[in-house]
Amino acid sequence: MRRIKLVVEYDGRGFLGWQRQKEGKTVQGIIESAIWSVVGKHLDEPVTLQVAGRTDAGVHALAQVSHVDLPDGVTIDPDRLMAGINFHIRDHGAAIVEAAVMEGDWHARFSAKRRHYRYHILSRRAPPALRTGRVWHVPVALDVDAMQEGANHLIGTYDFTTFRHSHCQAKSPIKTLEYFHVFARDDEILFETGSRSFLHHQVRSMVGSLKLVGSGNWSPDQIREALEARDRSALGMNAPPDGLYFLSVDYDE
Amino acid sequence: MRRIKLVVEYDGRGFLGWQRQKEGKTVQGIIESAIWSVVGKHLDEPVTLQVAGRTDAGVHALAQVSHVDLPDGVTIDPDRLMAGINFHIRDHGAAIVEAAVMEGDWHARFSAKRRHYRYHILSRRAPPALRTGRVWHVPVALDVDAMQEGANHLIGTYDFTTFRHSHCQAKSPIKTLEYFHVFARDDEILFETGSRSFLHHQVRSMVGSLKLVGSGNWSPDQIREALEARDRSALGMNAPPDGLYFLSVDYDE
Repeated sequence: MRRIKLVVEYDGRGFLGWQRQKEGKTVQGIIESAIWSVVGKHLDEPVTLQVAGRTDAGVHALAQVSHVDLPDGVTIDPDRLMAGINFHIRDHGAAIVEAAVMEGDWHARFSAKRRHYRYHILSRRAPPALRTGRVWHVPVALDVDAMQEGANHLIGTYDFTTFRHSHCQAKSPIKTLEYFHVFARDDEILFETGSRSFLHHQVRSMVGSLKLVGSGNWSPDQIREALEARDRSALGMNAPPDGLYFLSVDYDE
Repeated sequence: MRRIKLVVEYDGRGFLGWQRQKEGKTVQGIIESAIWSVVGKHLDEPVTLQVAGRTDAGVHALAQVSHVDLPDGVTIDPDRLMAGINFHIRDHGAAIVEAAVMEGDWHARFSAKRRHYRYHILSRRAPPALRTGRVWHVPVALDVDAMQEGANHLIGTYDFTTFRHSHCQAKSPIKTLEYFHVFARDDEILFETGSRSFLHHQVRSMVGSLKLVGSGNWSPDQIREALEARDRSALGMNAPPDGLYFLSVDYDE
């Protein structure tokens, strides 16, 4: 068996999310189909991609990490596999940006040490024209310093039940946020955060609540109170998927 | 008469370019129609937008500057006019990002002191997924230093006939390039340049020729030779519109 890492960039707008579904277009679905188109004649059964961080409908990725296992007899060069997949998915808003044969027991999901996300708010009165579907448009002024103060309450190891979707399948609501930066860049406000893993909707839930702090509806301390409530109903609001980008994954060497 | 400045962001993909045409969607066309929808009942005749830098089909803008003249009797607040226009054009990939009443004889086109453009090359083997139609995908390695060396030959006052479209309507081919920066950022190579005004296709023609330098097909000196030829047939190649962004305009205070 040869394990091949596939790093994927995608525009979430055209997809029902990462995970293959019976109906509708998903990132996993189109890549698995493309792999079948490229090397299927050498395979006994369809391939299944493993992924570091499943994403919801509308969420984008710059460097999502996945892998596929191919039988030893399938000796296709990773660069040729990448070119073949990209040929088949070229009109779907997704592309393999890196492919490599991995050694040992490396696993796209289980070997991941840290996931990184970024969220983009377009902070101006005018709606987006070049960034439609790629940012959350917030037409009221937001206080970046207050949002950073609120975000600081979330850095560390906590029970994040408040910021967890009711459908989340994680065994534990306890996660460790390693950093959470809030800063302005041109007409956008960016939120960058990293953790070994995240709960379902965690980043969007945290950003949605911090937006309430930015607009003055909440004090920064109310983020801490919401966290300590460990209660989904204490959540301020969920940010839309449009502004969320899965950035990258850290692995051991 | 009240002159109102309208700063416009647009995604060039959906448009035949800035300039109104008899058939087909243009930026000027949809904004003039939207103005008519907002204040037309107070007008005797259709409005005409003036613009700092007309752009071709597929070329984007972050802060194109235009103006419209309204009769004195039309006292609509610029912010309300902006909101009204944006309501009407919201699904077309364009937005007014700033509106203001201008005093004196300020003119979007004739008062412009300097136009700024940026060109984006996506420099990697994989095609774009998040930036489809927004970058020029060049899958071969490019030498940034060599391209900067070539670009340096274009800074200054020259006859740019080589880099001018045959349909260009400018009276003179002599232009003054004030700067031309070439640099890498993440997986992109950016070209930034500014001039009082540019010839039709000038930026795309310069970038296309510099790409030949980057890929080693031309030496940097061949840019100088092409310039000195003052002959369109000496042009290396024209870069596609996808990667070109009209950035901004400088005016006197």
